[in-house]
Amino acid sequence: MEKHPETLNGIFQALADPTRRAVIARLGKGPASISDLAKPFDMALPSFMKHIHFLEDSGLIRTHKEGRVRTCALEKKSFASVESWLSAQRALWEARTDRLEQFVTAASSKE
Amino acid sequence: MEKHPETLNGIFQALADPTRRAVIARLGKGPASISDLAKPFDMALPSFMKHIHFLEDSGLIRTHKEGRVRTCALEKKSFASVESWLSAQRALWEARTDRLEQFVTAASSKE
Repeated sequence: MEKHPETLNGIFQALADPTRRAVIARLGKGPASISDLAKPFDMALPSFMKHIHFLEDSGLIRTHKEGRVRTCALEKKSFASVESWLSAQRALWEARTDRLEQFVTAASSKE
Repeated sequence: MEKHPETLNGIFQALADPTRRAVIARLGKGPASISDLAKPFDMALPSFMKHIHFLEDSGLIRTHKEGRVRTCALEKKSFASVESWLSAQRALWEARTDRLEQFVTAASSKE
């Protein structure tokens, strides 16, 4: 069973869009203001803000406002839940491969 | 730049649903028929089939039919593109941490 299915739903949904993934890649280099983040995209600001809100709601980024400037930063610990889900899947496959190997070894030692 | 943004869109979208993630976790233990996969879910078969089609379209699973039975199996190489995207993000943060460290070391050696 997953511990926080809703969190994973939100994170994967947030990652399913190229603009949002590009914002995340940019923030990997350090925090940035909304206007700096928006620059590379040929997109109206309200549309871009929807992506920012989506990312913030998913927990992948946090934002804070100082004066008139809102700055965004990556919330790295949110990525840990994706990485841990992926490694849990990999652990399942690898356990299965180990069992197949044991079966083949046992079968050939009987021959 | 991402090599295959559409592929990543589809994969992340497919992973954004708890039923689809549960199917993936089940297939991690080995291939299974649609009817076996559907059993744990309180869901009409057409709704369940939509999830299977979604997973198949994303490339995360493959299916094949023998007689009347359709069997599903994990397409493990699709997970590699998610893992590689995630590790590219982590590489960005870590490069940044390294630069910060160098800066702090250089600053303190000047004192």
